[in-house]
Amino acid sequence: MATLIRSISAVTHQISHKSSMRNFIRKCSAAGSQDKVGFIGLGNMGGPMAANLVNSGHSVVGYDINPEAIERLRDVGGHVAPTPADVAAECSRIVTMLPNSQHVKNCYSGDHGIFETVKPGTLLLDSSTIDPSVSKDVAVLASKKGATYMDSPVSGGVNAAKGGTLTFMVGGPEQEFEAAKTILSLMGKNIVYCGGVGNGQSVKICNNMLLAITMIGTAETMNLGMRLGLDPKLLAGIINSSSGRCWASDTYNPVPGVFDHVPSSNDYQGGFGTALMTKDLGLAQDAATKSLTPTPLGSLSHQIYRIMCATELSGKDFSSVFQFLKDNDK
Amino acid sequence: MATLIRSISAVTHQISHKSSMRNFIRKCSAAGSQDKVGFIGLGNMGGPMAANLVNSGHSVVGYDINPEAIERLRDVGGHVAPTPADVAAECSRIVTMLPNSQHVKNCYSGDHGIFETVKPGTLLLDSSTIDPSVSKDVAVLASKKGATYMDSPVSGGVNAAKGGTLTFMVGGPEQEFEAAKTILSLMGKNIVYCGGVGNGQSVKICNNMLLAITMIGTAETMNLGMRLGLDPKLLAGIINSSSGRCWASDTYNPVPGVFDHVPSSNDYQGGFGTALMTKDLGLAQDAATKSLTPTPLGSLSHQIYRIMCATELSGKDFSSVFQFLKDNDK
Amino acid sequence: MATLIRSISAVTHQISHKSSMRNFIRKCSAAGSQDKVGFIGLGNMGGPMAANLVNSGHSVVGYDINPEAIERLRDVGGHVAPTPADVAAECSRIVTMLPNSQHVKNCYSGDHGIFETVKPGTLLLDSSTIDPSVSKDVAVLASKKGATYMDSPVSGGVNAAKGGTLTFMVGGPEQEFEAAKTILSLMGKNIVYCGGVGNGQSVKICNNMLLAITMIGTAETMNLGMRLGLDPKLLAGIINSSSGRCWASDTYNPVPGVFDHVPSSNDYQGGFGTALMTKDLGLAQDAATKSLTPTPLGSLSHQIYRIMCATELSGKDFSSVFQFLKDNDK
Amino acid sequence: MATLIRSISAVTHQISHKSSMRNFIRKCSAAGSQDKVGFIGLGNMGGPMAANLVNSGHSVVGYDINPEAIERLRDVGGHVAPTPADVAAECSRIVTMLPNSQHVKNCYSGDHGIFETVKPGTLLLDSSTIDPSVSKDVAVLASKKGATYMDSPVSGGVNAAKGGTLTFMVGGPEQEFEAAKTILSLMGKNIVYCGGVGNGQSVKICNNMLLAITMIGTAETMNLGMRLGLDPKLLAGIINSSSGRCWASDTYNPVPGVFDHVPSSNDYQGGFGTALMTKDLGLAQDAATKSLTPTPLGSLSHQIYRIMCATELSGKDFSSVFQFLKDNDK
Repeated sequence: MATLIRSISAVTHQISHKSSMRNFIRKCSAAGSQDKVGFIGLGNMGGPMAANLVNSGHSVVGYDINPEAIERLRDVGGHVAPTPADVAAECSRIVTMLPNSQHVKNCYSGDHGIFETVKPGTLLLDSSTIDPSVSKDVAVLASKKGATYMDSPVSGGVNAAKGGTLTFMVGGPEQEFEAAKTILSLMGKNIVYCGGVGNGQSVKICNNMLLAITMIGTAETMNLGMRLGLDPKLLAGIINSSSGRCWASDTYNPVPGVFDHVPSSNDYQGGFGTALMTKDLGLAQDAATKSLTPTPLGSLSHQIYRIMCATELSGKDFSSVFQFLKDNDK
Repeated sequence: MATLIRSISAVTHQISHKSSMRNFIRKCSAAGSQDKVGFIGLGNMGGPMAANLVNSGHSVVGYDINPEAIERLRDVGGHVAPTPADVAAECSRIVTMLPNSQHVKNCYSGDHGIFETVKPGTLLLDSSTIDPSVSKDVAVLASKKGATYMDSPVSGGVNAAKGGTLTFMVGGPEQEFEAAKTILSLMGKNIVYCGGVGNGQSVKICNNMLLAITMIGTAETMNLGMRLGLDPKLLAGIINSSSGRCWASDTYNPVPGVFDHVPSSNDYQGGFGTALMTKDLGLAQDAATKSLTPTPLGSLSHQIYRIMCATELSGKDFSSVFQFLKDNDK
Repeated sequence: MATLIRSISAVTHQISHKSSMRNFIRKCSAAGSQDKVGFIGLGNMGGPMAANLVNSGHSVVGYDINPEAIERLRDVGGHVAPTPADVAAECSRIVTMLPNSQHVKNCYSGDHGIFETVKPGTLLLDSSTIDPSVSKDVAVLASKKGATYMDSPVSGGVNAAKGGTLTFMVGGPEQEFEAAKTILSLMGKNIVYCGGVGNGQSVKICNNMLLAITMIGTAETMNLGMRLGLDPKLLAGIINSSSGRCWASDTYNPVPGVFDHVPSSNDYQGGFGTALMTKDLGLAQDAATKSLTPTPLGSLSHQIYRIMCATELSGKDFSSVFQFLKDNDK
Repeated sequence: MATLIRSISAVTHQISHKSSMRNFIRKCSAAGSQDKVGFIGLGNMGGPMAANLVNSGHSVVGYDINPEAIERLRDVGGHVAPTPADVAAECSRIVTMLPNSQHVKNCYSGDHGIFETVKPGTLLLDSSTIDPSVSKDVAVLASKKGATYMDSPVSGGVNAAKGGTLTFMVGGPEQEFEAAKTILSLMGKNIVYCGGVGNGQSVKICNNMLLAITMIGTAETMNLGMRLGLDPKLLAGIINSSSGRCWASDTYNPVPGVFDHVPSSNDYQGGFGTALMTKDLGLAQDAATKSLTPTPLGSLSHQIYRIMCATELSGKDFSSVFQFLKDNDK
């Protein structure tokens, strides 16, 4: 991991290279606002992330359509703006954390959106999980305004958001990565540079597709072994020291009782919800279809989670696929 | 792994429990033959395994239908018997290493088979990979003869067979495990007790089913990421420190150039062949169908490898599924 | 269909070819018993089939392990024997209708089984749905006794069994087909010759695999169309006059209300149960694995029905897969 | 729906119902151009379709980016315009036949696109196969211009386009259907009304998804039967009179030699290409993902055809999936 996380280079005083030049422009054009950080989307994830920014000493200007979310920001010491455009008028660095591609488009390009008022030099960090091609489109529009848009989706759930231990996967111009990291490291502990804009999204949906595959694979393998008469702890133990080993088996095993302190041993509560995994798998399928890439197991995994979404497991952790596949009554 | 591998307990002099009693009977009824070990099936795997037994100082009595295989055993100092029945007449400990369930049935129960001459107290160790229900059937027949049949399939390929570094997954009566381990540890380094007879097979096919799933999943995920513009080493690096991590990705990555010294970086030569993986997936599906267990990804993985068997990738390492899925020309 | 159903040729007096010779032997060796027909397996299907034989004027000698099933045969005028061996001692023509491969093996080769007493020349018609390779094995054993075993699985459910309108798919020696047809036509209306022994089973599992695929395909297609805003009757109408047309769509549509008088319009009651379809798909998968044949959609269909078997749809008609896939509440 | 149908204010007293009113307006606003029909996209399908319009006596004004396609239209007596906007300036009825959603967006909304010059009352018939949601978006834009956009994708290939025997599946305002049919019936023989705009696309992708499923299902079932020893004609015959029956089996069987005059008996040439089927399956998956609909077999079928696209079967008829699944050498 160390090799993947760029080390923060020492700050210098010379305006000797492109990146420093941009930072200089940013400071000039956004004079007086350099300490203000905008935050749009103050929900289950965005709320605690914004609170961590406030706690780090920044003046945070927030926006959300939900009055309760706004109130929570005020409670922790944040400020509020009436529209995304108003946030953009005040801040040279803005984080967005929104539910899906359409929300992102609206927030940036819609009426009273960020692009109505964004200043040249502004750094836009979008931590939403969306279609990588939408990230690329928004980045083009941002650059026309002289701003820089980077995608920076997260892994880690609500608890990681609260604890400031999220992982950010960042895509965008490499020379802006340090500036992005300065902000993101206040909300997370791993800030990973993934290449050009959209690559953060691509890495995230790739990882989560493989996660879904390995989770379903682990669930059905454990179930098969148990129905063949194997003890689940013994089976998990052997697999975890052998070639079937995977995170879903050795860290987050979906069979109740194999490990303590994972959702499967707590009635599949908490963790990463089935519906959210299904959303990410849908993004992976969209990307696969667009890029003409065959993903047979990713595709079937999407279907399985889609079917699960119509059951009572929709709101449970995605490891509850074990429960779905297990023939519990007969 | 350490907790899974039973430590060898000290040998005692008192014939105070069942296991010792059996060993005593074995010694008596097979008087003079206690050092002879039978070995039936001297192919790519069995040949080097038998050679390791010879090299450990045992007198090995071998059998194979293939004259060349027999000749190779002679060359390393082994003896030869004309039929499995003749092997059983001479030896109180016999290892079998055969291609499939039908061969095992014939070797044990057929004309001139082991059961025609097997002596009470004989220990039968079947390292073939076969249907667990066949292992159970053969064990019942063995017990009628007063012999003990244990299934002990291996993981690790030809090189591990030659180097004596195989892993054995052993199913059968627990009190016989030490006796089995005494022999098996001459051919492997991990001897894992899995429970009752057939459980060795069950563990093996479970692990390999999950291995196939994670390998195809890794192949399609890497391919998707690359087609979305990601660098394969960067993508593998992030996945391998994240929740998509699996052996197929972090140790045996199927994308050429991500790791050195794995089959994918050597034109998919060596390793674990597509056809052998397909065979194991077929056994997993048989077991799943019999036990009424849903295995959606295991089942689809079986189909994918089955289709691959009709291509030129049939003889390549099973990680060549990356090549199969990759759209290389268009 | 007409070309597939062999016309009954005129009976001749000359013992001029093999088939007539066998019939002659049958008459001699089974003297006095030529009108008695044995029937083993008097369950939901076998019971009404045997009753139809009785009603056609034959003396039927039945066997079942269930006393109630035996009583029902007595009630309609049948006779009863205490074991399959006793049936075989009395009858030169025997029909078997049993739940699975293991039952068939036991009935023929087990203690007090048919082969203990079967007379040369006996015609054995097995209407069970089992593994074709088991049919072939039993046929070999039968021929050693001088008897002829033919597989003759049925399509059509309980109502067709009662009404005598079953379809029989018959595998075995062509020269015995007329003799088989003489009996089977008393219980069904289509008697189809499929080639050598086992072929009746093969045809049945092939048809039912394709039926499962087309049914699931129709269910998911109708569901997709409806969620896209299409009227189900309009969609079914266009598909049924276009290239997506299939029996599952144009005759047995799984969407409630598209057709009257099909299970989907009667809460999926009656028809062909999910559990029975799952059994047939398991046989298809066994056959595919053994014959090294890729069947990706058949395999996935098996998995889907297997998962359904753990829900309340297990006892419903197999078209209830529409209900399974439909997202009814959200 | 109401919002999609542009409201037209009353103009005259003579015309007594809405539909006639619209036709009247169309004639007035597009005075002098009523006989001219525009046609944009003159490729393999559009070229012969436009030729049929010319042959029916209409003055056709065509556009294509390919000079050869334009030349072919001239050769059959058509006229040519330099841009889509020029076509729209001249014609009150325009047919578009383009490769994908992006082409349609550009043709209508791009620079020199139809919407730059389209006159109120113009009837726009888009026979491209695209995402239904794009059809809906374009329809909204059209109604802002006072024009009516209807989607009218086709089934039937190049030969049906040449012969004027295409089927058109039409979505859009019902009162405009007769006007659409007047034009479309010059190029096809079945003009099917499917409901509101986008429904033509929805019906087409539903039918083709089910077609792909039944085709792969038929291919694997036939292959399984043949490997089990069944004669393919016999198997097809029984299935086609039984519950496995489908168009792919009874009309377009993928096994060479079962039927004459289908692509499978002509080296899979002609017909409906694998790559085109794959495109339609991609649209179906996009629609399924957007509408949160599980389509397990449709999804797997998409994957199978996607993999086939990387083989030499990419350019063959989609029934060549039989060839793909068949294990021909081993």
